[in-house]
Amino acid sequence: MDGKQKVGIEAASRVRSGMVVGLGTGSTATYFIQELGRRIKSEGLVIQGVPSSYACFALARQAGIPLVAMDQIDRVDLYADGADEVDPRKGLLKGRGAAMLGEKLLAEAADSFLVLVDEGKLVQRLGTRFPIPVETLPAAQSLVEARLKSLGARVTLRPAGGKDGPVVTDAGNLVFDAAFPPGTDWHALDSALDAQPGVVGHGLFLRYASKSEVLVGGADGSMRVLG
Amino acid sequence: MDGKQKVGIEAASRVRSGMVVGLGTGSTATYFIQELGRRIKSEGLVIQGVPSSYACFALARQAGIPLVAMDQIDRVDLYADGADEVDPRKGLLKGRGAAMLGEKLLAEAADSFLVLVDEGKLVQRLGTRFPIPVETLPAAQSLVEARLKSLGARVTLRPAGGKDGPVVTDAGNLVFDAAFPPGTDWHALDSALDAQPGVVGHGLFLRYASKSEVLVGGADGSMRVLG
Repeated sequence: MDGKQKVGIEAASRVRSGMVVGLGTGSTATYFIQELGRRIKSEGLVIQGVPSSYACFALARQAGIPLVAMDQIDRVDLYADGADEVDPRKGLLKGRGAAMLGEKLLAEAADSFLVLVDEGKLVQRLGTRFPIPVETLPAAQSLVEARLKSLGARVTLRPAGGKDGPVVTDAGNLVFDAAFPPGTDWHALDSALDAQPGVVGHGLFLRYASKSEVLVGGADGSMRVLG
Repeated sequence: MDGKQKVGIEAASRVRSGMVVGLGTGSTATYFIQELGRRIKSEGLVIQGVPSSYACFALARQAGIPLVAMDQIDRVDLYADGADEVDPRKGLLKGRGAAMLGEKLLAEAADSFLVLVDEGKLVQRLGTRFPIPVETLPAAQSLVEARLKSLGARVTLRPAGGKDGPVVTDAGNLVFDAAFPPGTDWHALDSALDAQPGVVGHGLFLRYASKSEVLVGGADGSMRVLG
């Protein structure tokens, strides 16, 4: 059992019957979803799941989790998901799966947020390995690209695979990957991106530390918790 | 000539050949658009217009204004539009036409912003006559409605006419009209709405005063300018 699987199963063990559960997107969240499916079948666990994306929806349906749509809920008991980077203050960078909009809705709605990572995701500063994904209204793409560049970023429109053009998100938007220079003030950037017309969402998750617990899985199947 | 027509024509008189011009949505902006069309035909004015909405696009095409799409520009020279309320510091409330997202993109992109109103639109405090329109991702509607209520608002989902269900914006979103109590801090609310996942745009325009000039038309065809 590797670190991702360990924390996915641990997170699923914290779910109790009656809960409304936010379901993350990505390889680590997949272990969480599959383990919930197993507990539903073998233990009679009774829950409702809220998918964070179409990708997650397909997995959760396959796992046999009864689902409720995001637009029908205004809170969830627990939300479990991976992250691309986690800093020492439990700030997160998310969005390699282009699902950061649904994921941030769940982070906002959740009473508690379990962040599931392996050791490789821990960084001293966000933006160390990845650029910041910025979900952008297609009509605003020139404007937002110019704005990101004026903020100092190198900007790439995220391509889908092969001949499929750019990535289009579940909400019909484009994704710019914006690499900011070392020393960028992420809290200031978070507010600037929030305030930018045409930016529908982005991958900086800095406001959820107080409700978050980070489960870190080691390559040897061990686990530790960043409270 | 009433106040709206007066300021629409005055704004059009400030447009010069070679300009990229943001075109507003609503009854006052319509006078501006029609006068630009007249000047193109009779004076040989050469401009490109950028529509703020589908409604504006139809009017501008009919007026014979050469158009360029919002997604192809990263700035405009001048943007002229009406407003639902204007306060003494040139803060605006917009969005009775559900076009506040395209309108804010143009306000952001514009070198200068002409706000076109009649005397009846001047208020001491925003929110005096109208609620705040909040453009909301359909998937986030329960979440955002709950959040607006927790901020103290009475919340209505804006209906389209007749049997046509709720208003759906040009970008495919819903509009909540949120009436906040007297004494609400609009700057704090502006930031809170910007930061709220699922809110794609809203009708508070508080950041554009320094580039704005407010043209106020009187019922007698007079005009004055709030610098």
